[in-house]
Amino acid sequence: MKIKVGIVGVSGYTGLELVKILINHPIFELKLLCATESHPNIASLHPALKNILQMPIIEANIEKIAQECELVFLALPHQKAMEYVKTLYKKNIKIVDLSADYRLSFEKYEESYCQHLDKENLKNAVYGLPEYNRNAIANTNLVANPGCYPTASLLGILPFAQYIDTTQTFYIDAKSGVSGAGKKLTQTSHYVTINENLFAYSPISHRHTPEISEQIKKIGNIQVKTIFVPHLIPITRGMLVSIYAKLKEKINPLEILNEHYANEAFIRIHHNCVQIKNVVGTHFCDIYAKNDGEDLFISSSIDNLLRGASSQAVANANLMCGLDEKLGLPLIAYVP
Amino acid sequence: MKIKVGIVGVSGYTGLELVKILINHPIFELKLLCATESHPNIASLHPALKNILQMPIIEANIEKIAQECELVFLALPHQKAMEYVKTLYKKNIKIVDLSADYRLSFEKYEESYCQHLDKENLKNAVYGLPEYNRNAIANTNLVANPGCYPTASLLGILPFAQYIDTTQTFYIDAKSGVSGAGKKLTQTSHYVTINENLFAYSPISHRHTPEISEQIKKIGNIQVKTIFVPHLIPITRGMLVSIYAKLKEKINPLEILNEHYANEAFIRIHHNCVQIKNVVGTHFCDIYAKNDGEDLFISSSIDNLLRGASSQAVANANLMCGLDEKLGLPLIAYVP
Amino acid sequence: MKIKVGIVGVSGYTGLELVKILINHPIFELKLLCATESHPNIASLHPALKNILQMPIIEANIEKIAQECELVFLALPHQKAMEYVKTLYKKNIKIVDLSADYRLSFEKYEESYCQHLDKENLKNAVYGLPEYNRNAIANTNLVANPGCYPTASLLGILPFAQYIDTTQTFYIDAKSGVSGAGKKLTQTSHYVTINENLFAYSPISHRHTPEISEQIKKIGNIQVKTIFVPHLIPITRGMLVSIYAKLKEKINPLEILNEHYANEAFIRIHHNCVQIKNVVGTHFCDIYAKNDGEDLFISSSIDNLLRGASSQAVANANLMCGLDEKLGLPLIAYVP
Amino acid sequence: MKIKVGIVGVSGYTGLELVKILINHPIFELKLLCATESHPNIASLHPALKNILQMPIIEANIEKIAQECELVFLALPHQKAMEYVKTLYKKNIKIVDLSADYRLSFEKYEESYCQHLDKENLKNAVYGLPEYNRNAIANTNLVANPGCYPTASLLGILPFAQYIDTTQTFYIDAKSGVSGAGKKLTQTSHYVTINENLFAYSPISHRHTPEISEQIKKIGNIQVKTIFVPHLIPITRGMLVSIYAKLKEKINPLEILNEHYANEAFIRIHHNCVQIKNVVGTHFCDIYAKNDGEDLFISSSIDNLLRGASSQAVANANLMCGLDEKLGLPLIAYVP
Repeated sequence: MKIKVGIVGVSGYTGLELVKILINHPIFELKLLCATESHPNIASLHPALKNILQMPIIEANIEKIAQECELVFLALPHQKAMEYVKTLYKKNIKIVDLSADYRLSFEKYEESYCQHLDKENLKNAVYGLPEYNRNAIANTNLVANPGCYPTASLLGILPFAQYIDTTQTFYIDAKSGVSGAGKKLTQTSHYVTINENLFAYSPISHRHTPEISEQIKKIGNIQVKTIFVPHLIPITRGMLVSIYAKLKEKINPLEILNEHYANEAFIRIHHNCVQIKNVVGTHFCDIYAKNDGEDLFISSSIDNLLRGASSQAVANANLMCGLDEKLGLPLIAYVP
Repeated sequence: MKIKVGIVGVSGYTGLELVKILINHPIFELKLLCATESHPNIASLHPALKNILQMPIIEANIEKIAQECELVFLALPHQKAMEYVKTLYKKNIKIVDLSADYRLSFEKYEESYCQHLDKENLKNAVYGLPEYNRNAIANTNLVANPGCYPTASLLGILPFAQYIDTTQTFYIDAKSGVSGAGKKLTQTSHYVTINENLFAYSPISHRHTPEISEQIKKIGNIQVKTIFVPHLIPITRGMLVSIYAKLKEKINPLEILNEHYANEAFIRIHHNCVQIKNVVGTHFCDIYAKNDGEDLFISSSIDNLLRGASSQAVANANLMCGLDEKLGLPLIAYVP
Repeated sequence: MKIKVGIVGVSGYTGLELVKILINHPIFELKLLCATESHPNIASLHPALKNILQMPIIEANIEKIAQECELVFLALPHQKAMEYVKTLYKKNIKIVDLSADYRLSFEKYEESYCQHLDKENLKNAVYGLPEYNRNAIANTNLVANPGCYPTASLLGILPFAQYIDTTQTFYIDAKSGVSGAGKKLTQTSHYVTINENLFAYSPISHRHTPEISEQIKKIGNIQVKTIFVPHLIPITRGMLVSIYAKLKEKINPLEILNEHYANEAFIRIHHNCVQIKNVVGTHFCDIYAKNDGEDLFISSSIDNLLRGASSQAVANANLMCGLDEKLGLPLIAYVP
Repeated sequence: MKIKVGIVGVSGYTGLELVKILINHPIFELKLLCATESHPNIASLHPALKNILQMPIIEANIEKIAQECELVFLALPHQKAMEYVKTLYKKNIKIVDLSADYRLSFEKYEESYCQHLDKENLKNAVYGLPEYNRNAIANTNLVANPGCYPTASLLGILPFAQYIDTTQTFYIDAKSGVSGAGKKLTQTSHYVTINENLFAYSPISHRHTPEISEQIKKIGNIQVKTIFVPHLIPITRGMLVSIYAKLKEKINPLEILNEHYANEAFIRIHHNCVQIKNVVGTHFCDIYAKNDGEDLFISSSIDNLLRGASSQAVANANLMCGLDEKLGLPLIAYVP
């Protein structure tokens, strides 16, 4: 059995990672690669794929996708994605949307991004964090693939939801590699700007803040003020999130983590500080935690392009198609 | 007028930075360079000094220092420094100690480092943060030069001391370049370990925590629990400190910073996020702050080897000798 | 069918890469992991392998290897490897030796390295460059796995052997990432030394020079003076080799390359300058060439730890066991 | 005495470096900062200059420059510079042109760049390599400031001019940091493209080739075929040039270098391989050479933005104004 899949937005980093995963996927068959501009061969755009994948990129076309694919990955900018979802959802195409378009409630979305043109599908979308929404994902045709920062943050904080003192703020100090900013040319991603540098950006007001808050409430059943400050770091890929929270009581955080994730294959609990390098290239989320009385520190690390985007998208697609969640997921890091 | 100065521990990074500053200092005259091993010429150890400074390195010798120098910089490991201080202080040599030996109270020192063998001089030592202890520095013969993390943290947090809700913890998430770990060969500073990587280390229990806490109490007159988590980042030099604190009331943090540091030449208040690159190579501390209701975020950046060590040591030495604080201090960053 | 294999020297980078490849190899079964020190679990040494491979590392023991393995990879320092080969070869264990011990003629070896204690096996060893020695590799029990610099250089230069003016010197300017220097702690591999730096080392006299010269003569049937200058570059892995040679006549170098490697799956001929990034993580060698009259420039790039060591070792092992050469070889680069 | 100077093109990296040098120059007084767009304060464009230089940037205006400046630095793209030179030269303003517009003969210029619109001033321009053209520079009003690659190459090769076998090609394998590509946003200078990467570009056909060839002929009095291949390396600044040449006879290259540059303050001859790190931040050119019979290897390193542009421009300006060549030149490297 093969399932025909397409990727829309194959020219960016997450599009490339999707291709890299799907090339070797045992069930999904790459049927359609779309981008804003067509190319006779994907290898002309991504020369690392030379001699590996011989396949044209076509100009994105909703009709063609609907005809040829059973499932589609949308690796598009926000607002662009909903145009596709609107039509494709009606045609019963399974959709994993890597944009932000279906991650938030209508109100928060319009507050944080822009006008939402497909309000009705918001209720059909499942937030694609497999560890917490596995069943719902398996039963939907529309998955909102989580953002990279929310993925690392939620996987770190949710095991502690019931122990957190919700009268206090909790603080997320996040650090992301430059690939998170995309392939677009900006002064920020110029080599000379970010090499030997590091800085916070969009402190407090970053758009991933409401995504984190809403999911903590939905999944963790607690309402707690979240201050989120992302930092850009001079590495290509990988992300580390440092979380500071106030507990209601003293706990043994490693014990809680180990128990909470005992059956999760893609969460690794470490007994000392986690390192970005051990997860880059993989679907793993590595977590460490330590407390000092009622103060809790959590360190959580993922590959922003994989667990924070493309491998999580494939995990969701696996679940949506009734397949084993781990099919095709990359597990061996790029170390050293 | 020239003042004869010596450096003990010239083979490390802070020793090198001291030499680089003092070569062009208008008053201080480099008289003695000491290290564990002698070298006929410092340029054989630091080839970047070839054709710039022709001067031997001698084996450290307290008597010789006392005879030839009026002021000495100790760039030594902790516990090693106090051996020198014990003798040199009696001989009225002015001392800037870059180690941790005189930064803490006796109790905290022995808790955090090791046995203290020169307890009596602890009371004579002044904590060398010029912005807050200028007069005391000008009137002492022994300055405990602050640690890099405490310098960046204290300069960021102290302006807000009176506004902070001391019933709450405040959290410092610090990021430092690899030169902060010194020249010693360790697995952590191996290129392959830290390149394309980032991780927390000694979370909560790092030895700079009591230094920060004690000074917040002494200088800021508040007692507040401090959680400090340093991270190693893949850059050579520079440091960024992100501070999260709870306020007693809503404030305008930039207004407070501007007012508080209105007369300080080496503190720059920025209206958006500070970048490490703008301070590397300089004595500046760049600060930005933003609040969300009663939650305060402060971003503070310094060059760990200069403001966090050697240029601060020279600023202190200037003050101790009745000179203009800014003599010889590096102000122009290494950008781009 | 499974073939039992062992790795001796699993704590270094090439040992780790061998493990990463063999975990997913369809025929080779990891039976024995050896290192100088034993570890209850390889993941305690290489935390990236946590939850992926649960296997102890034992102290290297020749008898045990001979009993339990049909094929062994020796990822050992030179001179150490020949101790193993001496015994294991007699016991008919297939051996892929990643050290330099069997790459050179006896004379050149003793000139360049040290005393050779297993002269008689030199004649049994096949130089493991599959593109040129495929049949001999398939018929030997001892493969001398080529050095990383020679691999990139030879794959670039050999297609042009018959066109080269052998009365002239040809020059190889090679650039290697820091992982090539191994995991050992040295001042050179200290992050602060090599970050934002680049330098030549062992110019002209590097030990890979005779390896390249001898193979050009053996495989290419030409004798030509080789000047080889390696440079250390601030990246973790990957290698680029720039070759400058004098031609006897004008040629179309891309045509020659395309024809010469028409049937080679792991050599990719590019029509513009090759980039390290496109081969890191893979067994590919990417080559570009351009001439100006009788001057030829060749640019050849490999992953120093894979094509320059571990994936080439597995390719050789595949051939030695009568398997498809490409079994298990990594082909998808770590881009972006 | 003060000499009023202006900079046209202050928004780029070389413009910034000029400002950084001139801020502390004892004679030159920054009078006019020009760029394509005006800014109320240079620190808003280059935040590292905050609290250091308070000066507006005005829209470039030839009349104003002529009125207010005695000497002007043109840090402009090629072809743009000649517009300024044409007018300013007539008005007896001293000009240091950092572009390529006056470096080449008319023929080579039009071949390599574009149409030349100020042919007559080509004969008035002096190639600003102080070590070789000191007198001519002191007696001209128009200096063509050399390119970065030619500077490093010529300073390395010229001492050997009389020993080189001119019937053979000599090869220059150059490696430059990304700042050499300028501040403009391009896919090449995107962090993700060049980080952990390295590649040749414009091999053989780079526009610095004729500049090197012509000067070797003019200054070195030899005509020799030059193959020049630049490589982009993942560092911000600094450049290393590896030169391979055939000698007519065996020589002692270090002796020749030491003698040749015995009176040169800014050339440092090393006895082992030079490192980029030791020159970054300085006006120095560090050189090492080694031969193997009649094959010569030269390694030469400069800071591309300083010796390869801005500090060389200031050295030239010093000479043009009858000042001590070394006034204001940066000599202390940015190490570690």
